[in-house]
Amino acid sequence: MDVISVILTKRDRRELTDDQIDWVIDAYTRGEVADEQMSALAMAILLNGMNLREISRWTEAMIRSGVRMDFAALGVPTSDKHSTGGVGDKITLPLAPLVAACGAAVPQLSGRGLGHTGGTLDKLESIPGWRALLSNDEMMDVLRSSGAVICAAGDGLAPADKKLYALRDVTGTVEAIPLIASSIMSKKIAEGTGALVLDVKVGSGAFMKNLPDAQELARTMVGLGRGAGVNTVALLTDMSTPLGLTAGNALEVRESVEVLAGGGPADVVELTVALAREMLAAAGVAGKDPADALRDGSAMDHWRRMITAQGGDVDAPLPVAREQHVIAAPASGVLTALDAYAVGVCAWRLGAGRARKEDPVQAGAGVEMHAKPGDLVTAGQPLLTLHTDTPERFDYAVEALTGGIAVSPAGTEYTRTPLILDRIV
Amino acid sequence: MDVISVILTKRDRRELTDDQIDWVIDAYTRGEVADEQMSALAMAILLNGMNLREISRWTEAMIRSGVRMDFAALGVPTSDKHSTGGVGDKITLPLAPLVAACGAAVPQLSGRGLGHTGGTLDKLESIPGWRALLSNDEMMDVLRSSGAVICAAGDGLAPADKKLYALRDVTGTVEAIPLIASSIMSKKIAEGTGALVLDVKVGSGAFMKNLPDAQELARTMVGLGRGAGVNTVALLTDMSTPLGLTAGNALEVRESVEVLAGGGPADVVELTVALAREMLAAAGVAGKDPADALRDGSAMDHWRRMITAQGGDVDAPLPVAREQHVIAAPASGVLTALDAYAVGVCAWRLGAGRARKEDPVQAGAGVEMHAKPGDLVTAGQPLLTLHTDTPERFDYAVEALTGGIAVSPAGTEYTRTPLILDRIV
Repeated sequence: MDVISVILTKRDRRELTDDQIDWVIDAYTRGEVADEQMSALAMAILLNGMNLREISRWTEAMIRSGVRMDFAALGVPTSDKHSTGGVGDKITLPLAPLVAACGAAVPQLSGRGLGHTGGTLDKLESIPGWRALLSNDEMMDVLRSSGAVICAAGDGLAPADKKLYALRDVTGTVEAIPLIASSIMSKKIAEGTGALVLDVKVGSGAFMKNLPDAQELARTMVGLGRGAGVNTVALLTDMSTPLGLTAGNALEVRESVEVLAGGGPADVVELTVALAREMLAAAGVAGKDPADALRDGSAMDHWRRMITAQGGDVDAPLPVAREQHVIAAPASGVLTALDAYAVGVCAWRLGAGRARKEDPVQAGAGVEMHAKPGDLVTAGQPLLTLHTDTPERFDYAVEALTGGIAVSPAGTEYTRTPLILDRIV
Repeated sequence: MDVISVILTKRDRRELTDDQIDWVIDAYTRGEVADEQMSALAMAILLNGMNLREISRWTEAMIRSGVRMDFAALGVPTSDKHSTGGVGDKITLPLAPLVAACGAAVPQLSGRGLGHTGGTLDKLESIPGWRALLSNDEMMDVLRSSGAVICAAGDGLAPADKKLYALRDVTGTVEAIPLIASSIMSKKIAEGTGALVLDVKVGSGAFMKNLPDAQELARTMVGLGRGAGVNTVALLTDMSTPLGLTAGNALEVRESVEVLAGGGPADVVELTVALAREMLAAAGVAGKDPADALRDGSAMDHWRRMITAQGGDVDAPLPVAREQHVIAAPASGVLTALDAYAVGVCAWRLGAGRARKEDPVQAGAGVEMHAKPGDLVTAGQPLLTLHTDTPERFDYAVEALTGGIAVSPAGTEYTRTPLILDRIV
């Protein structure tokens, strides 16, 4: 087996054999296949595709490159959720303790943000004292004591994916459905969850800009999950406008706590409850209804236990950015567009996100929204409040909003995009 | 400017701008763009192509990465030839002194073989004492004293191409017309020749397996040459069977000397004379006819002077391999196939070629042919003699011939493929 023949197979639009896939993933993990060879193969895969058998084998090979976790000792059905990433997508924060409160255990390995989309770990790290890095034993302890744990994936989990993901990030080979699907699913399958609900985002703020691409990705991932014995379901949800009224780290924690307290923006509540119901159903748990668990305080109890178990001070005030800048509505009428990508890039530039993996993020930075598409606004009223510790970034951040906000004359017909666009099983 | 946006441009099937091309070639030469990024870009170029403007700019950028030579001080028109590589293609050896004998100077920078095709420098190095590495001053001296020089390109010539060529070789991105054309033409234009004749090989033993691909490559290269002020012409010539009766290093030197002595195989003589006429016409030199210069010994005089000036002993016996193995004709009848690729791989495996750039080659190894397609053969007569210093390679070398030799019953109609298939100006 040699790497050139593997590259030529995909370059010349032929199918990779099982042996070729097993060999190339193993040899790349061991450093025998060089980065420049893997990136050429990744580009050939991006442009020429892989079929479901190839993607499935590729995923298995990445799982086999490391350890596979097992929560059977817990004695409770496990269920997890993965979002393909969006703007203002803080759903994991209220969702994990909510599902725990309803009877399933949630072992959630999360990531950090890169680009304009936020990362769950970055958000939680804005809580004073909270730690993302846990040993396997600590992870099991938190899961036992609070029913849910959100932490960083250890080095032993799908190391081939870790190496390939970093390579794709610098070689223009991120946006390939076979590689996105196998990257997500190798981590989630290795994580050892029994059930998995995928939240595949669709729209300007997501990887997948249109419904057919998102459906293809969702079908591919559901196929991979079921093939590996994980009961997998996907919801396709709108990401043309941000979720909720905040995009940023501490800002989103605040909003998540509002949801756990029985309040919060309607869209965040709707999606959190819908995903919780899917996670419970997929795990075969028929207990408390998630909407009740938000009202009766049991979800909040699980949140406090989970955060405290990971060193977080749930009663400490959240960080606030040093400077604010208000963007006013440009006209009176119906807000017809508040573009997710524009808001995401704005929050990123304010310091909520990072340009390189090793950059720090600002806990308090981000965008607060005072209206959502479909709302009536008055010229001059505050539309957005931008937050940052580095006010020299305001101009550059405001620039990101160009073309992202539209106000139409009052009386203009406006139909809100449904939050849940499709469901794939 | 950043490399990801350059990669995405080509990945997403858009045209690279002049600025993007200039920047990426310069940044890659300086090591700012990493190998894994350039290989992803090379794969995107291979799969999505470049138009003539892009290829032309890419070529110019590679030329600008190093020095450009100038032979104006010579006071004689310069003309060079480049072959895209074949099996048994020793034409440069008799051709350079022949053209010198007819009045044009030939400053030929050559390469080494890689894969199943031989390299001119490897062949000449089988002559005891001959040196491929010359300083610029030495090169000019040899050119003045003998009218022709064949030597290795210095490090200063198109360093971007040198780096990219080595990368393409290990990443499955060799067979891209834009990259092949710009690689060849950047070196030839930087070399400073006034006229250039391209010998674009077509057939099993060549890069280009069919005429339309070869025509596209030839048109691209002719366009690049003319655009850079080099009077460029291309001949498309057959490489379905080896040229002449030898493939190997010393074996091909011996055959070249036979041609310079007025003998040699008909196809080698025909192509040598045709290319010499093209080189003289392109340089605007109307002197002696090349066919006469082979007969009257003046081409041989120039050969002896050129080899001697580079340290070679023209009277020393050429190296001979330690072991021989004869392949007999499998049946009586008309030899209808002697496949160039099969013979090339056989010679390569015998030790005439190298697997890695740093490997040595055997001077005496190779294949001697006793018949050519169209000849009548008798079952059991010697068809090929294989030569090597390492007889343990015979089995593996013979394996390469499987399916490459065909004998049809006597009386079978057989039309020889014309040697020269097309001419592109």
